[in-house]
Amino acid sequence: MILTVTLNTALDLTYGVPELVPHASHRVSDMSERPGGKGLNVARVLSALGHETVVTGFAGGSTGTVLRELLAARPADAPAPGTAPAPLTDALVAVAGNTRRTIAVVDRATGDTTQLNEPGPLVTADEWTALLGRYEELLAGADAVALCGSLPPGIHVGAYAELVRAARTAGVPVLLDTSGEPLRRGIAARPDLIKPNADELAQLTGSREPMRATRDARRRGAHGVIASLGPDGMLAVTPDGIWQAAPPARVPGNPTGAGDSAVAGLLSGLVEGLSWPDRLRRAVALSTATVLSPTAGDFDRAAYEELLPRVGIEEHAPAA
Amino acid sequence: MILTVTLNTALDLTYGVPELVPHASHRVSDMSERPGGKGLNVARVLSALGHETVVTGFAGGSTGTVLRELLAARPADAPAPGTAPAPLTDALVAVAGNTRRTIAVVDRATGDTTQLNEPGPLVTADEWTALLGRYEELLAGADAVALCGSLPPGIHVGAYAELVRAARTAGVPVLLDTSGEPLRRGIAARPDLIKPNADELAQLTGSREPMRATRDARRRGAHGVIASLGPDGMLAVTPDGIWQAAPPARVPGNPTGAGDSAVAGLLSGLVEGLSWPDRLRRAVALSTATVLSPTAGDFDRAAYEELLPRVGIEEHAPAA
Repeated sequence: MILTVTLNTALDLTYGVPELVPHASHRVSDMSERPGGKGLNVARVLSALGHETVVTGFAGGSTGTVLRELLAARPADAPAPGTAPAPLTDALVAVAGNTRRTIAVVDRATGDTTQLNEPGPLVTADEWTALLGRYEELLAGADAVALCGSLPPGIHVGAYAELVRAARTAGVPVLLDTSGEPLRRGIAARPDLIKPNADELAQLTGSREPMRATRDARRRGAHGVIASLGPDGMLAVTPDGIWQAAPPARVPGNPTGAGDSAVAGLLSGLVEGLSWPDRLRRAVALSTATVLSPTAGDFDRAAYEELLPRVGIEEHAPAA
Repeated sequence: MILTVTLNTALDLTYGVPELVPHASHRVSDMSERPGGKGLNVARVLSALGHETVVTGFAGGSTGTVLRELLAARPADAPAPGTAPAPLTDALVAVAGNTRRTIAVVDRATGDTTQLNEPGPLVTADEWTALLGRYEELLAGADAVALCGSLPPGIHVGAYAELVRAARTAGVPVLLDTSGEPLRRGIAARPDLIKPNADELAQLTGSREPMRATRDARRRGAHGVIASLGPDGMLAVTPDGIWQAAPPARVPGNPTGAGDSAVAGLLSGLVEGLSWPDRLRRAVALSTATVLSPTAGDFDRAAYEELLPRVGIEEHAPAA
């Protein structure tokens, strides 16, 4: 089983409008509602890849109830022909506060998206203690764990460092995907993997030069750093070597969720004992197939299968 | 008791953002949630004025549940010193669909608001029949009724005409506040009052000249037409005469809900047997005090008391 942790889950709403005009009134022409937060997105992709997955984190209030109902009722996400997704189990911890909403306003004229994110519920010390207990129980049965996304109000900035240490103590490989100070603190606790994008790396290291920034991030404590280069693919600096992986071509589409699909690719590859090049091929093919999907955050299964053998892998000389 | 009908109730969310930038991601800095839809706003003001009020219309799904909880728990809206608001009773009819959300995104740099309105639940024929039954029961105890706002999907465009006729059959004075084709059809059923703004009047009559458009609207069937002139006050063309009412000065602020406060002023004045000039004074003072209130849709009680004697009333010569 793969465990994903989403401390700040979200009810993701997508509103289509004919054209977004600031300071005007808009009638929403089409809308959808789905369970969100990075770890839930990662879990959905893992499940579609056939990996049994458990999600934990916090959910509460009326929006939390809707999120959990949608999670229980979720349709099979792009399953391969003749296959069903693996079980995705809800082990979220109930909180008194209201799970946040995020709203993606999609301008149907241009396809551009304007995002509005509520901050999330205030989590109490008792609720955090309950999460820690649930997490340690779940680690006992986990082959790998992903810690994903922002922290809700009330959670201390070293929370991810604490979760990384618990995973390492339990001997469970841990991937950390967050940003800012929680990432800086979390890295110092020596996670197996981090997956920053260019902005997150620059914020962490002060450098926008991918190789320099990625190596710097490794020196700060992460065993492996997989830097997302956006449409150019990924750069992996690991204890076993350095690789760059690139999709066969740049593709048009919506990058929402592409990073979460990459995390699912890396983590499933690790659990399956794939080589680094194969893990990277999967991560790049999944994230490209997510950009290509008409539904934000889903991946296009046919595009994934087609892209997988065509991802370019280049091995770099070991670090000086 | 005064009855208000809101066929398309809404959970009104207000999101403050430091600055709204299209196609960017925003963290919501402050937010509030309250029961909305024009008839609910009218009822809140009526209750604050000391009038026992019953609300009906539709509510459903998780957003409908939150709306009803907030309605039951609503704080006293700007009650006069030493007074409490009169009871506001929830007689909403449950529907299977989800009550819509409306989102007002307030740019905290400029105060400008960008509005996003979900369309509302699809209401079935059986649910409409249930509403008609509830409405006729409630009319038996009503001194006046206000029919407010847009129609949700599934409701026929002559719905307000049907509700106007039922009120007239029951001998209950009826005010209709809607727009477009539902207004056009509703007027033909001869409501006691309509309260269009300049845009609604122009859409109905083709004229932007207030006196001409207001008289035209009366000829179409409304016994009395109270045209909102925005910051310039109101023009009332009634069977008893023609009056224009204006606030002592233009005021800065947020006009959201000013029209609903005016409806509450007109309806409470009718039930109390006030003269037309006194009803108009109340409506203009309430709507101006709503623009002045820091919370969208609430009125500033002190400003209302202060403005009331200062509203200017001018009587026009009877229609030629």
